[in-house]
Amino acid sequence: MSTIREVAAKAGVSVTTVSRTLNNRGYISQSMRERIRKAMEELNYQPNEVARSLSFQHTRMIGVLVPEVNNPFFAEVVTRLSRELTAHGYRMLLYIASGTDDDAPDYIAMLRSNQVDGMIVALRSPSVEKELRDGLPTVSFERLPSGGLPTVVCDNLEGGRLAARELLDCGCRRPVMLGGRHAIENFPAFERFRGYRETMEAAGYPAEIYEINEEDYHNDYSEAARKVFLAYPDMDGIFCTSDRIASFVMQEALRRGVRIPEQLKVVGFNDCIAGQCAIPLTSVRQPLDEMCAAAVDCVIRQIERQPITAAMSFPVSLSRRVSTRGYVASPYIMRR
Amino acid sequence: MSTIREVAAKAGVSVTTVSRTLNNRGYISQSMRERIRKAMEELNYQPNEVARSLSFQHTRMIGVLVPEVNNPFFAEVVTRLSRELTAHGYRMLLYIASGTDDDAPDYIAMLRSNQVDGMIVALRSPSVEKELRDGLPTVSFERLPSGGLPTVVCDNLEGGRLAARELLDCGCRRPVMLGGRHAIENFPAFERFRGYRETMEAAGYPAEIYEINEEDYHNDYSEAARKVFLAYPDMDGIFCTSDRIASFVMQEALRRGVRIPEQLKVVGFNDCIAGQCAIPLTSVRQPLDEMCAAAVDCVIRQIERQPITAAMSFPVSLSRRVSTRGYVASPYIMRR
Repeated sequence: MSTIREVAAKAGVSVTTVSRTLNNRGYISQSMRERIRKAMEELNYQPNEVARSLSFQHTRMIGVLVPEVNNPFFAEVVTRLSRELTAHGYRMLLYIASGTDDDAPDYIAMLRSNQVDGMIVALRSPSVEKELRDGLPTVSFERLPSGGLPTVVCDNLEGGRLAARELLDCGCRRPVMLGGRHAIENFPAFERFRGYRETMEAAGYPAEIYEINEEDYHNDYSEAARKVFLAYPDMDGIFCTSDRIASFVMQEALRRGVRIPEQLKVVGFNDCIAGQCAIPLTSVRQPLDEMCAAAVDCVIRQIERQPITAAMSFPVSLSRRVSTRGYVASPYIMRR
Repeated sequence: MSTIREVAAKAGVSVTTVSRTLNNRGYISQSMRERIRKAMEELNYQPNEVARSLSFQHTRMIGVLVPEVNNPFFAEVVTRLSRELTAHGYRMLLYIASGTDDDAPDYIAMLRSNQVDGMIVALRSPSVEKELRDGLPTVSFERLPSGGLPTVVCDNLEGGRLAARELLDCGCRRPVMLGGRHAIENFPAFERFRGYRETMEAAGYPAEIYEINEEDYHNDYSEAARKVFLAYPDMDGIFCTSDRIASFVMQEALRRGVRIPEQLKVVGFNDCIAGQCAIPLTSVRQPLDEMCAAAVDCVIRQIERQPITAAMSFPVSLSRRVSTRGYVASPYIMRR
């Protein structure tokens, strides 16, 4: 039985490199791994776990699965996850579901065959669920817990409450909520609707909710915006479950000559593009930096077999802007 | 010397699997490769190129390097590249430069050690340049040719001309162009400025150009927008080198009570978010679907050692909307 020193000598590398290879620390090129592996075989320096660690080596790659990145929210999420992962010496293998998540299972299988060390998943569909039920370190992002995965979400319930209160505080008496898929329990919108409804009903106002139907629920919400103005011609406030939806509502309002915020007050959710809208949009803000850092920390902790918090919920705040408060001395963000 | 049939039998896999492993077709798990490799060694079925192909196996991963994805243009690019790559059985290893490209070289080295089959690069900095000078199949996206890399761009020169003509056609007499970094030759904005200047001067108008200085050139262009209104209080038209910049200009205009398009006509570039702005934005459109398909095709052709077109330029068009034409019967897109 030979020593690690002999292996290093035979492979023509330092002892450190051999031990880093054995412990999967730092970056060792595939060819050098191969050389070291050969040297071990020839010197018969090869306990089983080493052989295994060399075939199933860590790749320091994390698979990130999102429904879209041309949605500003997920663009911000992917940007922050990428930053965090790079800071920890990991790379991001990104999967963007093409509208449907149908090919996600194949992709997850690919990721496996490609030996990602873990996954951060912002998709939620039965097909994906099934695939995620095994030992691979995984974190579910911005989807309610399901399938017992560790989850990072924001306090969507409170977000709905904040939006409702803002509309009431600004004097809205015929408010409407606009969003989609709130029937699906594991979508964040569900909790937002619940918080909105609670608050409106507690204040003695009807919780008018206009649900965007499936065929209008995509990147272009102009059709949904037109319909809500037809359904509620006299609405004086509207809470949209995303800033993107809100931007189409404001577009439709300007087109109809409806003045914001004088005649219609608008509140969005996510606060990613809200500050850039032609009419700066009041929006419920999620602490994305903290949420993304937590997701990355959680997946790395699982990889390193450390204890984790299984369900993390982060507080939201309200960014008040022109769409509810009008142009004030500074039109720029006032945090609650 | 033994046969592939014997190797398959010893490894307990089909002959097809062995040959697919040898030719790097389809997905073979690392562990199965290992098993097949062992069987070959034990049966002494191992010409050198096979050993090599097994250590330097194709990974069917393509590294994609972009400056940001919270910029709608790159979000659309990444979305389309992802779709194209997945359709061809490749995965996307995404790198998002954190503002500066400083860590890009390290990342490229990581990608190498990680054995990507090729790279699609939308970053351009001297440091990145250096790293890309070698055999790895690479395509440069939306950056002018440099370092002799195959390149996919749109016709930025014509884009600048289209924007200038639109402002003139709409009666602007005191137009201004707003953008950044046009001094750097390999940035697309450079050509856009050139086309704009040519057209304005040919029409007998001064090509007023306000360059955004470095510290104002980031995701939030509100400061740049404020400055251009101070520098050109009487401008009646403005061409911004991106829709994002234009959205901040429109925000500043509404804040100042400047009516669009009556008092100020605005033209953007990229046509990604242009249709979603509260005031639908006239914008120069790039054929992103075709450009992304071409980039993926070009990198795969290099991987497969097929001939390629070294420099591909795609035609642009103008999407006329409310920001220059006002609300017409249909406020929606009229393609030139």
